[in-house]
Amino acid sequence: MKPSRRSAVPGFEVMSILAEIESLRSAGRDIISLTAGEPGSGAPPAVNAAAARVHAENTVLNYSPAFGIMSLRQALAEHYQNWYGVEIPVERIAVTTGSSGAFMLSFLAAFDPGDRVALARPGYPAYRNILASLGVEVVDLDCGPEVRFQPTPEQLEAEVAANGPIQGLMVASPANPTGTMLDREQLAALTSWCRNNGVQLISDEIYHGITFAHPGVSAAEIDDDALVISSFSKYWGMPGWRLGWSILPEYLVDPVARLAGNVALCPPHGSQIAAVAAFTQESMGFAEAQLADYAKARALVLDALPELGWGQSAPADGAFYVYAHLGEHLQRHQDAAGYARALLHQAGVAVVPGTDFDPVNGHEWIRLSLAPGSAVVAQGIERIRHHHTQG
Amino acid sequence: MKPSRRSAVPGFEVMSILAEIESLRSAGRDIISLTAGEPGSGAPPAVNAAAARVHAENTVLNYSPAFGIMSLRQALAEHYQNWYGVEIPVERIAVTTGSSGAFMLSFLAAFDPGDRVALARPGYPAYRNILASLGVEVVDLDCGPEVRFQPTPEQLEAEVAANGPIQGLMVASPANPTGTMLDREQLAALTSWCRNNGVQLISDEIYHGITFAHPGVSAAEIDDDALVISSFSKYWGMPGWRLGWSILPEYLVDPVARLAGNVALCPPHGSQIAAVAAFTQESMGFAEAQLADYAKARALVLDALPELGWGQSAPADGAFYVYAHLGEHLQRHQDAAGYARALLHQAGVAVVPGTDFDPVNGHEWIRLSLAPGSAVVAQGIERIRHHHTQG
Repeated sequence: MKPSRRSAVPGFEVMSILAEIESLRSAGRDIISLTAGEPGSGAPPAVNAAAARVHAENTVLNYSPAFGIMSLRQALAEHYQNWYGVEIPVERIAVTTGSSGAFMLSFLAAFDPGDRVALARPGYPAYRNILASLGVEVVDLDCGPEVRFQPTPEQLEAEVAANGPIQGLMVASPANPTGTMLDREQLAALTSWCRNNGVQLISDEIYHGITFAHPGVSAAEIDDDALVISSFSKYWGMPGWRLGWSILPEYLVDPVARLAGNVALCPPHGSQIAAVAAFTQESMGFAEAQLADYAKARALVLDALPELGWGQSAPADGAFYVYAHLGEHLQRHQDAAGYARALLHQAGVAVVPGTDFDPVNGHEWIRLSLAPGSAVVAQGIERIRHHHTQG
Repeated sequence: MKPSRRSAVPGFEVMSILAEIESLRSAGRDIISLTAGEPGSGAPPAVNAAAARVHAENTVLNYSPAFGIMSLRQALAEHYQNWYGVEIPVERIAVTTGSSGAFMLSFLAAFDPGDRVALARPGYPAYRNILASLGVEVVDLDCGPEVRFQPTPEQLEAEVAANGPIQGLMVASPANPTGTMLDREQLAALTSWCRNNGVQLISDEIYHGITFAHPGVSAAEIDDDALVISSFSKYWGMPGWRLGWSILPEYLVDPVARLAGNVALCPPHGSQIAAVAAFTQESMGFAEAQLADYAKARALVLDALPELGWGQSAPADGAFYVYAHLGEHLQRHQDAAGYARALLHQAGVAVVPGTDFDPVNGHEWIRLSLAPGSAVVAQGIERIRHHHTQG
């Protein structure tokens, strides 16, 4: 008896880092972890209050409809009206079990085995690993500083010319790990390239709301055939609530509904009821306060880059990460994993090596998360600075 | 632009019944729905109290470990000790996003495209639909009254002789829609057939605890290489909490962990913390009270079968369903869908046609759910009796 071939997805370097953090902490070491994309704030208090009410009243939580409760879908439609000025029919809005649930359903509904789907490298590793487990061929687009870490229509043209047609393009703006965003013109160029080439665009907008350079543009504003994925995890600080959503092209509504009824049944019902309160003025104010704190943390790190001896960082337009080149430290340490290990053991600060996001060039980069908040990030930077001075 | 071929999973007859229920109710009709496998009771009060506390304290709910929080995994290990007298290493216990999450992860980890997996017909339709969407060939075992609606080693032998080897066998005891169980001897025979033939056994034990004939036997008692799937949804009345678990063979622990970190990230964190309280004496007592009520509802329906003019039912050993043959009504109505529609519109009682569970013979059967509780079931039966008398 042995596992399937498709389950041979790569392990993450960050998992071994997290295990080391645990073991160091168990041994009494004080470790500052700037690894995870997990807001330190938790959910808006009004959302927690709504959830507490659901449970205090012993509300019977059975299956919700596969696409979620209507009040939440309506709240999401209003949210798209408020933030983006775009009218999304509630029928096209599917609440999902986190953005993870939306990825699985979308990939199943849009792509068959053997299809080719392009995505930027560096990028969120789950995209490629889920796609690969479903028999979809992942087409890497090498997106370094020269293209601002985002794919371009020229790259897509070159890929198709060299290796044949693609069926999908996955974009993320702001992206993980870089934080780099596509502006309206860039997103529109990719969208129309997809439309002209019969390619399904999937736009991961999970970091929308956490933006510093300019507000995020949603693919839903530009093209009804784009498939948009987002979540309550980041801007609203609710990763453990497992609640996301998807804006579906008309022709994928029924297929995704049928798949969802089999694959997921429904998203967490209690989380759904509570999440309606995420759109109150009070909750949006809470999220904006976190945003202000991320902005403070971001400025701290960007200002410290030269002194820390790190090279350039990717344009940190949004999200709560700084993806920085190792710069002068590259000579002394074998690679990002070695540097990260040194920081962890000697400075007591954990960061993620870039290899998890980019198997080719990632060994020269690290990702630092601002999500724990500016106070923690300030402490972390101070420890790294001190460590470098001593070393 | 069009959906993937693999998203062409069949729709469920029950979905159109549910839509008709909604529309009749909106029009002011009083409809008794005996369709869903959703306990009318809700979660044990101690579980709700724990959840209310989590949210009242604004607990930060970030990602849990991919396999769930250790306290819940330990509580599950104790549960297997208490119920089955079997020692399961906590490393082999993975908390999942409902049993749905466990199905997806298990199927991905155990089977590659082109593998053949056998399962009983009638059966839970999501098994076949998820497997098919992952490129796995579903091998139907025709399991009627002559084999007590459960697969046998003889059927498996015949299938392999006729059509070549299989890589997996999916069993469910108690099964949905029949409620029929495998006893220890039967399960052991299937388990050793699988072991001898290099076939991965997956045992769906989601209805354990809701048993009338004899306590459920877990495949985990019999073979460490069996993959067991279960959930808090049924016995504890928590379908909307999206919380299940899996007992993994040693050789699938790492593959499932890696897949879970990509596909799901983690199960709902708040549900996990609260579910630890499902194993208190108080919560188990609450669940046992529901069981007593299901037993009452079951007796009501089984006693009424002859008078209702229904034929035999499958042996309702467990779960909260009665799967009954249409008997004399088959002549008057075209099929189960026609009969169900007549009951719905004329008697105001909704049941599910068997076609959703068995595309070949299901048109002669209906599934009636006892989950709404004995009071509701009694009313439903009374309406059907009255309708038949009038008709």
